[in-house]
Amino acid sequence: MAGMHSDRVETFSDGVMAVIITLMAFGVKPPEGHTLDALVKMLPALLIYLLSFTFIGIYWNNHHHLFRATHRINAAVMWANLHLLFWLSLIPIVTSWVGFEDHYKWPVPAAAYGAVGLGAAIAYTLLVKSIIKANGDDSAIARAIGSDVKGRISLAMYAAAIPLAFLSPWISYALYVAVTLMWLVPDRRLADDFIEHED
Amino acid sequence: MAGMHSDRVETFSDGVMAVIITLMAFGVKPPEGHTLDALVKMLPALLIYLLSFTFIGIYWNNHHHLFRATHRINAAVMWANLHLLFWLSLIPIVTSWVGFEDHYKWPVPAAAYGAVGLGAAIAYTLLVKSIIKANGDDSAIARAIGSDVKGRISLAMYAAAIPLAFLSPWISYALYVAVTLMWLVPDRRLADDFIEHED
Amino acid sequence: MAGMHSDRVETFSDGVMAVIITLMAFGVKPPEGHTLDALVKMLPALLIYLLSFTFIGIYWNNHHHLFRATHRINAAVMWANLHLLFWLSLIPIVTSWVGFEDHYKWPVPAAAYGAVGLGAAIAYTLLVKSIIKANGDDSAIARAIGSDVKGRISLAMYAAAIPLAFLSPWISYALYVAVTLMWLVPDRRLADDFIEHED
Amino acid sequence: MAGMHSDRVETFSDGVMAVIITLMAFGVKPPEGHTLDALVKMLPALLIYLLSFTFIGIYWNNHHHLFRATHRINAAVMWANLHLLFWLSLIPIVTSWVGFEDHYKWPVPAAAYGAVGLGAAIAYTLLVKSIIKANGDDSAIARAIGSDVKGRISLAMYAAAIPLAFLSPWISYALYVAVTLMWLVPDRRLADDFIEHED
Repeated sequence: MAGMHSDRVETFSDGVMAVIITLMAFGVKPPEGHTLDALVKMLPALLIYLLSFTFIGIYWNNHHHLFRATHRINAAVMWANLHLLFWLSLIPIVTSWVGFEDHYKWPVPAAAYGAVGLGAAIAYTLLVKSIIKANGDDSAIARAIGSDVKGRISLAMYAAAIPLAFLSPWISYALYVAVTLMWLVPDRRLADDFIEHED
Repeated sequence: MAGMHSDRVETFSDGVMAVIITLMAFGVKPPEGHTLDALVKMLPALLIYLLSFTFIGIYWNNHHHLFRATHRINAAVMWANLHLLFWLSLIPIVTSWVGFEDHYKWPVPAAAYGAVGLGAAIAYTLLVKSIIKANGDDSAIARAIGSDVKGRISLAMYAAAIPLAFLSPWISYALYVAVTLMWLVPDRRLADDFIEHED
Repeated sequence: MAGMHSDRVETFSDGVMAVIITLMAFGVKPPEGHTLDALVKMLPALLIYLLSFTFIGIYWNNHHHLFRATHRINAAVMWANLHLLFWLSLIPIVTSWVGFEDHYKWPVPAAAYGAVGLGAAIAYTLLVKSIIKANGDDSAIARAIGSDVKGRISLAMYAAAIPLAFLSPWISYALYVAVTLMWLVPDRRLADDFIEHED
Repeated sequence: MAGMHSDRVETFSDGVMAVIITLMAFGVKPPEGHTLDALVKMLPALLIYLLSFTFIGIYWNNHHHLFRATHRINAAVMWANLHLLFWLSLIPIVTSWVGFEDHYKWPVPAAAYGAVGLGAAIAYTLLVKSIIKANGDDSAIARAIGSDVKGRISLAMYAAAIPLAFLSPWISYALYVAVTLMWLVPDRRLADDFIEHED
């Protein structure tokens, strides 16, 4: 497997993420009826869609940076990548669950959203580990990642959001928004590494 | 982020737009029943689908020209691009809303269609600005864009179509068709720039 | 527009066709209930899906050959291509219409299937014409196409199938299958041209 | 057709598989209601989705290795490939059929899942044969494949699972999981061949 090209893995992942991000919009049911009321009732579904859209956008962005810094991949990396895509593919399902009628007011859908987020975060961590293992501890990617503080904080916040949803779903949503905002800033570690390499 | 390649951003955007344009067709429900009447009842849904298909086609075309003329992208460009894709991803939802039963006769769906069009137009303007900022005021792209008359007219027409829908939805649809026809002619500014570069 | 690359048009078209071919399967509703009877009831839907799958497969194949032989594209080609994709995007809708319950037994759905097929065939003819115009009458592509006998026969058969559906839908389906079988053999004209060019 | 590039066939296949894998998630209906019970009821649908996701992942992986080792393709290969994609495109349908309500407890859906798996396995075998024929018995790919033991075992297991579903669907599911686990290990034959070629 030494000769496997990261290109096709990247292209396939991009394809899957492009479909996920678009399918999600399709899960947002158009308002029932032609009134402004019907449109307003749709607002929670739209907001959770916006959150999930940004969520997938962040993963796409980080995934892009990660693979740009990767020179070697093997079967373990490929399956770790598919594992991540599996969790991401569950995002449209929880999005459409939380966005349906008044589900967003209840703890279980809010907690389930966090569980999928946690699954994706763990899968991403495992993907990074498998890439470092395939490229060696001295590789550019290993040095670039260093200690993954932001990744650990995300994991902790998603893990906390699951039980806290039973106190109030709003705490969980606040945590999801916080994690998202934290990641909107692109990963400086890898970004810097690129500049070194290419200028 | 200096080293980010516009290629993958372009490919991802293409993927998203390809899925949007196709999913939209899926939002067009097949006629109920096997009669000619059932087929005729579907006509408004088909026409609004044709409008939205052309709308996405125009954005794909302009996006293509814009990125062809772009040499440097950064994180701001990438998020401006995702922001545009977000608005485009709402097009299938409003299309299927307007196309459902007799919704096209009512002001709110017609206005919502304009709101999404306006959002996409603003997002495109921001994307152009972020690209110019990343490439410098003296760059080919900055010179090529010049004063974006066509973009400003579009913005004004979408903004006007929203309140006018409450007078009559037909005024709004007329405006949407007008904007679409105006853009069917490819953007000469960038097109000329290409010829210079490549011949 | 002289500098427009056919690559991105091809990639976008491929993306759209890949989504169409897959979405169509999604339009095939799983059987209702868990019995063999339920599965058997689904058979017409499966057969019409198989026909449409092959139909899109043929277009993908011919499209691929056409663009391989194309050196120059312009705005007219691009819009002729989107026009073709528009008709192809209606295939899942008629497929799921014809495949629903006993719709296949009735003339209007069978005729509508032919109308979409006719639209796609006309769009393909226009696309070929626009490509020849962009490349000149002396271009390899113009010589390769020659007189498009197969294309003309397809047009005639789809045009005939529409009124004949009102005599019996089975005549129409027989014609659709015949056109499909005729095209399953890849287009020798362009294929030969490739061999010349590349060996 | 001698000049046909395997690249575009690969890209198209990747696109189709990316859409299949994502659409499948869309076929998993979100829980009805906001309770934990509703979520638990969804578990069988999630498990069969996980199985099908892995199934498509394996085909994507093997397909990737197969085409990496392929130098020449022709029309027969292209249609053999589309034939494989046809069977894969039926996976979301059987997945959503088996995953609906308590369908997983009944023999016909379980057997149908096996029938589609068998169809895909046969289609893959035919694809391999057509590739070997196009490349010659002395080609790297022909030597690399050798006697396809794993492929034959899969065929036998799927063929056995269909009648055994009428004894108990659980035997069939056990066989599907067994085939999947067997393939999770990447195909050493082609992998070794790569190392030879590229290092």
